[in-house]
Amino acid sequence: MEFEAFTASELAAYLGAIPEIRALLGEPHDLEVAEVGDGNLNYVYFVTNTKAPERSVVVKQAPPFLRLVGKTWPLSCQRMEHEVAALRRFGALCPRHVPKVYHADSKRFLMVMQRLASHRILRQGLMDGVVYPKLAAHLSTYLAQTLFHGSDLFLAPDIKKEAMSAAVNSELCKITEDLVFTFPFEDHPSNVYSAALPASSLERLRTSEALRIAAGDMKWAFMNHAETLLHGDLHTGSIMVNEDETFVIDPEFSFYGPIGFDIGAVLANLLLAYFSRDWHGRIDDRDPSGYQEWLLVQVAEVWNGFSAQFLKLWREHESRGERGFIGGHAEARSVEGYRTHFMRRLLADTLGFAGCKMIRRIVGMAKVADITRIPDAQARARIEVRCLRCAEDLLVKRATLGSIEQVVMLAREVQRETITHA
Amino acid sequence: MEFEAFTASELAAYLGAIPEIRALLGEPHDLEVAEVGDGNLNYVYFVTNTKAPERSVVVKQAPPFLRLVGKTWPLSCQRMEHEVAALRRFGALCPRHVPKVYHADSKRFLMVMQRLASHRILRQGLMDGVVYPKLAAHLSTYLAQTLFHGSDLFLAPDIKKEAMSAAVNSELCKITEDLVFTFPFEDHPSNVYSAALPASSLERLRTSEALRIAAGDMKWAFMNHAETLLHGDLHTGSIMVNEDETFVIDPEFSFYGPIGFDIGAVLANLLLAYFSRDWHGRIDDRDPSGYQEWLLVQVAEVWNGFSAQFLKLWREHESRGERGFIGGHAEARSVEGYRTHFMRRLLADTLGFAGCKMIRRIVGMAKVADITRIPDAQARARIEVRCLRCAEDLLVKRATLGSIEQVVMLAREVQRETITHA
Repeated sequence: MEFEAFTASELAAYLGAIPEIRALLGEPHDLEVAEVGDGNLNYVYFVTNTKAPERSVVVKQAPPFLRLVGKTWPLSCQRMEHEVAALRRFGALCPRHVPKVYHADSKRFLMVMQRLASHRILRQGLMDGVVYPKLAAHLSTYLAQTLFHGSDLFLAPDIKKEAMSAAVNSELCKITEDLVFTFPFEDHPSNVYSAALPASSLERLRTSEALRIAAGDMKWAFMNHAETLLHGDLHTGSIMVNEDETFVIDPEFSFYGPIGFDIGAVLANLLLAYFSRDWHGRIDDRDPSGYQEWLLVQVAEVWNGFSAQFLKLWREHESRGERGFIGGHAEARSVEGYRTHFMRRLLADTLGFAGCKMIRRIVGMAKVADITRIPDAQARARIEVRCLRCAEDLLVKRATLGSIEQVVMLAREVQRETITHA
Repeated sequence: MEFEAFTASELAAYLGAIPEIRALLGEPHDLEVAEVGDGNLNYVYFVTNTKAPERSVVVKQAPPFLRLVGKTWPLSCQRMEHEVAALRRFGALCPRHVPKVYHADSKRFLMVMQRLASHRILRQGLMDGVVYPKLAAHLSTYLAQTLFHGSDLFLAPDIKKEAMSAAVNSELCKITEDLVFTFPFEDHPSNVYSAALPASSLERLRTSEALRIAAGDMKWAFMNHAETLLHGDLHTGSIMVNEDETFVIDPEFSFYGPIGFDIGAVLANLLLAYFSRDWHGRIDDRDPSGYQEWLLVQVAEVWNGFSAQFLKLWREHESRGERGFIGGHAEARSVEGYRTHFMRRLLADTLGFAGCKMIRRIVGMAKVADITRIPDAQARARIEVRCLRCAEDLLVKRATLGSIEQVVMLAREVQRETITHA
């Protein structure tokens, strides 16, 4: 059967026929349907009772192709089942930061979920210079809760292997393997380069051995290191916020992968916001530096908050059990030494993934508005070059950047440097 | 149904009822059945036609418990299906070094396979000081063929993920996780220490932070790095040899794990043979040093032969495709740089796993005859201390030992050191 997107009245009728949803939303003839999908993959609708606008849900439907490209890039619709399973798992682990799923229909490749009506996409908020006082605390909690509880540090090994096997997501992983880890490092036809981006910056991606080896390591880790259940696409467009609340949405890329991948995605997008602030923050002759500093504080607090909570969960879990991961009692000195070592390796992984994520947003097919909404081609290219420089350093120096504070210093240095175009 | 091992006549009758096996072996009343299992897990029989002894097969049956311990350590019988699948896969990749499977019966947890009548277990041959001129070439070919073709360097990513998922082997992996990576590093009741082993050597396993962190890294890699389909238990008791041929048997621990694990197991067992030769090679006042040198040459040749063949397979595969693993054409300079980097990381992994494997054979439950057949308690302890020292160095220095030649030098140094007992 050919996939047809719902018309507004078809969707209202469909929802009216599901008792739980009808109870939530009211009568079909009172419903207003608005197509709001700006994603690359799916159709997304807000469905609202016009007589009682607080009665509202989100409906998400997965067409059997990559929406960004069209029917020439087919995708299996199973990704909706995948996303539902991930939302339910993450929701159980971290209910404060994951929207509720009210209904899932695997035949229609569709789900009905909590409407976050007073929240906006974090990327938009950051472009507008909004300060979210609880953002870092919320994101670090979400990351620690989800990433710890899917790993061998928490799950029994058989349960973890079963979860890993159930979460295999070859098709969407392939998109990441290609678009994040491979195509940006070659002259691929799907790449999109902004007009003024200097050739020397592109050239480095294809010739710098240290950079290419580092990116190869991250690709290998992405494809092989089945450490925990990841969100898999945790950029600032997958986060909805207001002053008080933070929700992580859209985990359709979810799979068992390296712990650092989700954290790296968050840090990469904060750093893209930081460098692009040099444009957005100067509109009307304002000074970008204050908000830029706030963004760097978020970088540090997301990692430090994550790290502290992850370690706390790990210590508490082992103190309840009979032994630590490395054998022996949970309190042994080397058990804590192993934890320190583990977190340092995890930071290195995180920075490597952050670097790859930044690079793909500059030279790859799928851009971010932080960058593309800079109308001045020269200013945009200057910012893109800084993003690429920072990304390269994150990748190449990931094992020697021993703390997130050094990452913050690195970002400041890259920002300060005078960029001369080749 | 309670598991009952076959009697000889029951097994002969069972085999006679399978047409292909009857064609191979002849009439049931001509068959002689000998139980020969000396393994920790299974029942193994040689079934031979007494009138034509060249007509002979091996029958292997998996009881629903760990044979070494008994019915108090239950195991699922699915491990036989697992082993059959692995034998068939490895046999397709490397037919010269993997025995043929003639028949598999998943209801009886049983398989019938090629009899290697003129071959013996490699461990026995090494204890007797036999030189196998083709051993290193054969083992390195087996390792390169099986480990390369299961990995993302060869398989399409969806095929690889499917194979990984099908090869999940939680129960037998748990045995390795516990017996190789955890129990040896604590005072576990299943550990077995030889009488004269100095307390200081045991103490290091429980207190040396660098050693325990390294072992923790290897455990994490074992549990998470799903790089290729492994044999999973490739010690010298899983290898059958004669002067001309080498076969790898018993892949029931097979699963998707780190590429270095199988190679590390081979090197560990060659090093255990090397150190224990200091006893076996002195019987009747002989000089052990010649055979010890041959063993070290095997260590170097197994790695170097593996590495050369693995790289050759990789280069040939990429030159046939449109791009290298890291993007760009297969001939780009950094593509070869990535390969060098990859092999160096793989050597580090290999050495770390070799270290863990050596340690478990000295302090863990499952010993090796190379060590246990040394009747002189002091001599045995001296050799055990050397094995532990070498293993610790392999683990702690695995990233800085940049070549297998340095590993060989390390082994010689450990052998030369005067051991003073604490």
